[in-house]
Amino acid sequence: MEKWTFRRRVEFAETDAAGIVHFASLMIYMEQAEHAFLRGLGLSVFPKQGDEFPGTWPRVHVACEFFAPARFEDELTVLVQIDRIGGSSVTYRMELERSGEAIARGTMTSVHCLHEGDRLVPRPIPEEIRRRLQPYLVGSSPRA
Amino acid sequence: MEKWTFRRRVEFAETDAAGIVHFASLMIYMEQAEHAFLRGLGLSVFPKQGDEFPGTWPRVHVACEFFAPARFEDELTVLVQIDRIGGSSVTYRMELERSGEAIARGTMTSVHCLHEGDRLVPRPIPEEIRRRLQPYLVGSSPRA
Amino acid sequence: MEKWTFRRRVEFAETDAAGIVHFASLMIYMEQAEHAFLRGLGLSVFPKQGDEFPGTWPRVHVACEFFAPARFEDELTVLVQIDRIGGSSVTYRMELERSGEAIARGTMTSVHCLHEGDRLVPRPIPEEIRRRLQPYLVGSSPRA
Amino acid sequence: MEKWTFRRRVEFAETDAAGIVHFASLMIYMEQAEHAFLRGLGLSVFPKQGDEFPGTWPRVHVACEFFAPARFEDELTVLVQIDRIGGSSVTYRMELERSGEAIARGTMTSVHCLHEGDRLVPRPIPEEIRRRLQPYLVGSSPRA
Repeated sequence: MEKWTFRRRVEFAETDAAGIVHFASLMIYMEQAEHAFLRGLGLSVFPKQGDEFPGTWPRVHVACEFFAPARFEDELTVLVQIDRIGGSSVTYRMELERSGEAIARGTMTSVHCLHEGDRLVPRPIPEEIRRRLQPYLVGSSPRA
Repeated sequence: MEKWTFRRRVEFAETDAAGIVHFASLMIYMEQAEHAFLRGLGLSVFPKQGDEFPGTWPRVHVACEFFAPARFEDELTVLVQIDRIGGSSVTYRMELERSGEAIARGTMTSVHCLHEGDRLVPRPIPEEIRRRLQPYLVGSSPRA
Repeated sequence: MEKWTFRRRVEFAETDAAGIVHFASLMIYMEQAEHAFLRGLGLSVFPKQGDEFPGTWPRVHVACEFFAPARFEDELTVLVQIDRIGGSSVTYRMELERSGEAIARGTMTSVHCLHEGDRLVPRPIPEEIRRRLQPYLVGSSPRA
Repeated sequence: MEKWTFRRRVEFAETDAAGIVHFASLMIYMEQAEHAFLRGLGLSVFPKQGDEFPGTWPRVHVACEFFAPARFEDELTVLVQIDRIGGSSVTYRMELERSGEAIARGTMTSVHCLHEGDRLVPRPIPEEIRRRLQPYLVGSSPRA
């Protein structure tokens, strides 16, 4: 099993009057980590004409616990793993850290959908995408 | 048991390139509903010098399910109830609707804290605050 | 000449670690005032199928001076007037106040465009829209 | 004269329903470029206890022209120069590009202030800071 790492620095606009990063900014960091993870696998949540995979990934569930505040200019790490790969959904597990200290931990579930006319319809995750996600599934064997 | 109602219209800056409200904006609507609810009870999450209650309410947990997209200029309602009042924490239950259609449903847990020197320390919820929250607790009797 | 008034309360997510409203939030308030103003005239920056006017209004210029900080839960007013109506553009003048105290003053220029295929193309402002904007033009006569 | 370069990728939460980056996000990119520039000079807009320079830099003016839309996952560059160093103020000139194509151009003026009791008071820019800013002043000689 592998963890995928996303790093970023806290920007001023993401803080609030309590002097810390606003909770919605932490959730956006997790979304940015998900998107960077998919990009790293050659995928996009918002594919362009001609991209290999036309699917998109609307979010259907998020949950997050907050352990410690983060502040302006802190350098944070989001560690991305996958808790579950379903028929059409992926549930990510996200750990947000600052120098090894836990800041927040969350899960996010996204559903693989295709545009059919004006509608977004859940569709099975293609085998090739499933193959690329697999090494990050919690409990899986490392890549040979 | 009563539900407290917060209304707002979707603003353009809160939408994303999928043409719908970004999920983090929906979570911010829930925070705005929490803050408006507290204001309605004569409380603030960010009390000023001289306010009746000096406590603040950092968030320790959020969870949210997304059922249907909301779009620019939609008029949304957040219905606020309380699932649990603990020793120092309150867990809100938030239902986000558009003309009766469920858009999202979430929970948020905030902890009553006091500033002690540089630190924020969890402290029991004062009786008077507990009394004001009580009518919104799921399963409670209506106000006499 | 008339001024159109937009009111809103400062939300917590819009503040920053300096304890005040972030400057980008003030600019978003001005955009919200522009959109509410257009809505009041029966227009939308993001028209739906079947709306009377299919045009949209991308922004090409903004400028803003900041005079005094605004804080969480402040009730702010944006006064909207129009500095200039050009062939296809409108330049708004925005005054942001708190109980009569100037917080910020800005201008925003938006261009009336139509979707032509994949492109947005500047097109003359229709006479009927021009007629509706006129009373808010600085220096114009009041509506008879 | 030197230009300081800040790079970043467009994130999904920064786009809007028009399918492009929201104008306020572009202004936040310019703020992030300013903060990264100051960090590169050993300064911070939000100094911590013990930092070499205790001043902060509230923004008093911004202006921005928008030339072309930017989209999700675009890689953008902000080129930072200084138009003017006054007694206590700095006016930045910001050019936002994508692969050499101009996306937006703006100016931002920030004022060097010190905390005096509860107030922020404009104070002359210290000579050492002035010396560090100088190479980025438009029209200045390159560093020897």
